[in-house]
Amino acid sequence: MDLSQELAIGIDIGGTNTKYGLVNHRGEIVEKGDIKTDSFPTIEDFVDGLYKTLQPIMAKVGDGERIRGIGVGAPNGNYYTGTIEYAPNLHWKGIIPLAKLISEKFGLRCSLTNDANAAAVGEMMYGAARGMKDFIMITLGTGVGSGIVANGHVVYGHDGFAGELGHTIIRHGGRKHWSTKLDGSVEAYCSATGIALTAKELLANSTEPSLLRNFEEAKIDSKIVFDCAIQGDALAAEVYRFTGQLLGESLANFVMFSSPEAIILFGGVIKAGNLIMQPTKEHMEKNLLPIFQNKVRLVFSELKEADAAILGASALVWEMRD
Amino acid sequence: MDLSQELAIGIDIGGTNTKYGLVNHRGEIVEKGDIKTDSFPTIEDFVDGLYKTLQPIMAKVGDGERIRGIGVGAPNGNYYTGTIEYAPNLHWKGIIPLAKLISEKFGLRCSLTNDANAAAVGEMMYGAARGMKDFIMITLGTGVGSGIVANGHVVYGHDGFAGELGHTIIRHGGRKHWSTKLDGSVEAYCSATGIALTAKELLANSTEPSLLRNFEEAKIDSKIVFDCAIQGDALAAEVYRFTGQLLGESLANFVMFSSPEAIILFGGVIKAGNLIMQPTKEHMEKNLLPIFQNKVRLVFSELKEADAAILGASALVWEMRD
Repeated sequence: MDLSQELAIGIDIGGTNTKYGLVNHRGEIVEKGDIKTDSFPTIEDFVDGLYKTLQPIMAKVGDGERIRGIGVGAPNGNYYTGTIEYAPNLHWKGIIPLAKLISEKFGLRCSLTNDANAAAVGEMMYGAARGMKDFIMITLGTGVGSGIVANGHVVYGHDGFAGELGHTIIRHGGRKHWSTKLDGSVEAYCSATGIALTAKELLANSTEPSLLRNFEEAKIDSKIVFDCAIQGDALAAEVYRFTGQLLGESLANFVMFSSPEAIILFGGVIKAGNLIMQPTKEHMEKNLLPIFQNKVRLVFSELKEADAAILGASALVWEMRD
Repeated sequence: MDLSQELAIGIDIGGTNTKYGLVNHRGEIVEKGDIKTDSFPTIEDFVDGLYKTLQPIMAKVGDGERIRGIGVGAPNGNYYTGTIEYAPNLHWKGIIPLAKLISEKFGLRCSLTNDANAAAVGEMMYGAARGMKDFIMITLGTGVGSGIVANGHVVYGHDGFAGELGHTIIRHGGRKHWSTKLDGSVEAYCSATGIALTAKELLANSTEPSLLRNFEEAKIDSKIVFDCAIQGDALAAEVYRFTGQLLGESLANFVMFSSPEAIILFGGVIKAGNLIMQPTKEHMEKNLLPIFQNKVRLVFSELKEADAAILGASALVWEMRD
């Protein structure tokens, strides 16, 4: 088989949608689509659904011969075992041997990792981290995820679960996380959910006029905060400043751990652009030892959000040993 | 040369003393000694002094033929460049090309890393981390240092300075560090210096009787706190409980970064034994996601403190490429 003709299937499993793509060695997605994750009651139904969707596409590109394998990014995905373990955002519970199920159904090899690690690999192969051996990817979406690359390899830890930076504590005794119940974690503040909570707290604790007061409190989400902030609303801007401060302090801690060349920010929250970048950078630098200051490139992802995890998941396939 | 006859020189440079040892492949220190770091005004004097001390010993074991190379652990030592850069605890300032100077003087190859990384390598080859690919070494002495091993390799970061966990922030707006001026870093609380400061704060903020009150305040150090604690003094015990709490919270953050199989505690502070271990373990577990709980082995170093860095530094020699 001519290598340039080979394709890898990349699959990104989220709580609501599962995206897939057929990717070539140049990182071009030649076919893509999605299915509803939560419309399949059991994992076996899901794998069947995935197969029924992908089989015609695989046939179209050359009846499976060109497909080298399948890579999957999934919440709580474990690279070592190929299992998804106790993922709070998926409706399938317990330990799910997904790589094995997919491999058996498709007759292809399958590798699996968590979604943030997959995005980091995508960024390393095709995005802002091209050529880097040491970087950290932070995904700022509904939650806060992370993928850490050191010495050119994803840090998986002894059990495959390394890189849960969103759950590190940045404020002792701070805001209790709605799901983990930990106090003061990065995710409690710097996720989209956290941003909405900060806005509600600021509104409750002041009488300052704000465009945000035009919205019913229960409806306020990070998108509304963003819309108000770009219209010049001071309170909404303060929400981002505060979020950036906590994110920056967290990043300083991460830098003193693995001294990355760059930190790449990814996910819905980065749509806020400089509203989040400026305070993040300021507070990261302020909390670093001089030896680390003005060295770490803090950048936004260069990949389309929808594509990064598919590309990263597909890249797992090229790493498979023959 | 019969490999079993080969020796490596390991050198551990501290602010006051520099220890050296000749080590064989089994990790046995066949000769050792020390010189006064601060008695040499210039780095050239120091290298000369080291040579004059070591040359007769090398001659004794076989005029240099058996010596494969020299490994050095030093504060702010950079593995990539072989330099010591702006080490606050050494009296030689700026960037010091130590590996090059030693190599030229001795006519042997020389590798250099920071002291905590050297201790981690020593622990991996000869101590509590034998056979582990993912662990973190925390040195609790005058300061707090760290060496991180992931995928079987020390994490150096893009610039060689990774692993400064003592300078990560654990208490926002907390105690200002006497030297770095950062607020609330791990070292500000969990070092021997931090323990003495905590004791003084507790004494000042209460009227509780304590054996510590028998000492002049300026004289109180971590050794006195330890002596009082083992005599059953409640306030001194509280100092260790508080120190362990902050250390445990910090370790939880580190675990969620690299998911190590073990964390190995090392240095003078661990003489306190269970006084420090029990609260550290309790607060580490309390701040972990369930997925990490009851998995990480928290243990004390198995190496003599004086030997770990020498062994680790010598191990750099065996890794040199021909």
